[in-house]
Amino acid sequence: MGSRAIPIEKKRGRPRSNDTQKAILKAAAEMVIGAGLAEMTIEGVAERAGVGKASIYRRWPSKGALAFDAVVDTIIAVHPTLDTGSLEGDLVHVAEGWVRLSNNRRGGRAVAHFIAEVQSDPDLAAAWRERFVKRIRNERRPIIDRAIARGEIAAGSDADLILDLLYGPLYHRYLNGHLPLDESFARGVARMVAAASVDGAAVPDPPS
Amino acid sequence: MGSRAIPIEKKRGRPRSNDTQKAILKAAAEMVIGAGLAEMTIEGVAERAGVGKASIYRRWPSKGALAFDAVVDTIIAVHPTLDTGSLEGDLVHVAEGWVRLSNNRRGGRAVAHFIAEVQSDPDLAAAWRERFVKRIRNERRPIIDRAIARGEIAAGSDADLILDLLYGPLYHRYLNGHLPLDESFARGVARMVAAASVDGAAVPDPPS
Repeated sequence: MGSRAIPIEKKRGRPRSNDTQKAILKAAAEMVIGAGLAEMTIEGVAERAGVGKASIYRRWPSKGALAFDAVVDTIIAVHPTLDTGSLEGDLVHVAEGWVRLSNNRRGGRAVAHFIAEVQSDPDLAAAWRERFVKRIRNERRPIIDRAIARGEIAAGSDADLILDLLYGPLYHRYLNGHLPLDESFARGVARMVAAASVDGAAVPDPPS
Repeated sequence: MGSRAIPIEKKRGRPRSNDTQKAILKAAAEMVIGAGLAEMTIEGVAERAGVGKASIYRRWPSKGALAFDAVVDTIIAVHPTLDTGSLEGDLVHVAEGWVRLSNNRRGGRAVAHFIAEVQSDPDLAAAWRERFVKRIRNERRPIIDRAIARGEIAAGSDADLILDLLYGPLYHRYLNGHLPLDESFARGVARMVAAASVDGAAVPDPPS
């Protein structure tokens, strides 16, 4: 859509609201990645973004919701979903990017602390699922859709099962630290998931 | 080994120490599964086990170490590793047992709270890895060894990669709650992991 088609009156208002939203998300991402969720405050975000607190409360129901949106935006911007032409290639790209981000000295533990906090806070857990977990998964789902469209995997493949097989092992080493979370592991996980999916193992059992 | 072969003098001391150890572990398991790690105290465990606090301090370096030993003992006792004759059968048994335990209303969230706590306590995290994560994995490793011995999967298969592919997705739904953690999911995970392993995908890439 050409932006020239939008009447000037509308253009004037919209960008300003979008800019506010972007400034708030940027400030929140900086604070939560730099210092953690506990240290991030609505006051601090408002000050850093140069907006009033009401501008934040109007857009987000809680501090956690803002933090999750800010971090997931950052991850998706840094690691867009790539079309490499094969399921394994696409999964390797996601897994390697995930490993790199989680090993980042600045902010690499943010997600671990989010997951820790949501274990004892049901409202925060609901925001986490909706705003972070589901959003990332929706962002990666075209990888499965494309593999089905190419005929690389069966049409009845369970995309959620495939995504859990990809993300689960990465999170497992990230949260437990029992073995190295490196690119070789990322490639191994992607290779396993692609092989199982191509083999048809992601197609659910018929109901018994 | 027939217990009759053991001289009576040795039998007298050993069982008493073993009984003390068992009583402490049982008391700790009841407290931590019933009320959580925060509520479990060395005093409380000593009282419930009918032993002195010194008997506990002599055996465990920290409260966390005792709690992890107690819970892992319980899990292994309730869910021993089974030899079903096939890799997929063995993995299904582990995964279904894991799902049942984690959905248990009494204590099913204990492991989630352990993982939450270790994210901000490096000493506790070290005890967690050594006493819980590695112990469970060592307990399940014969599943992979047997599959190799049967010629079901390649001899060079990476047992750690296979175990992370099995446990990772289960923990992922357990900690995030984004989708149901049920027996159908357990079977799907086991089916995916077995298919990938049989396909040879658990054999590491040659070093480049």
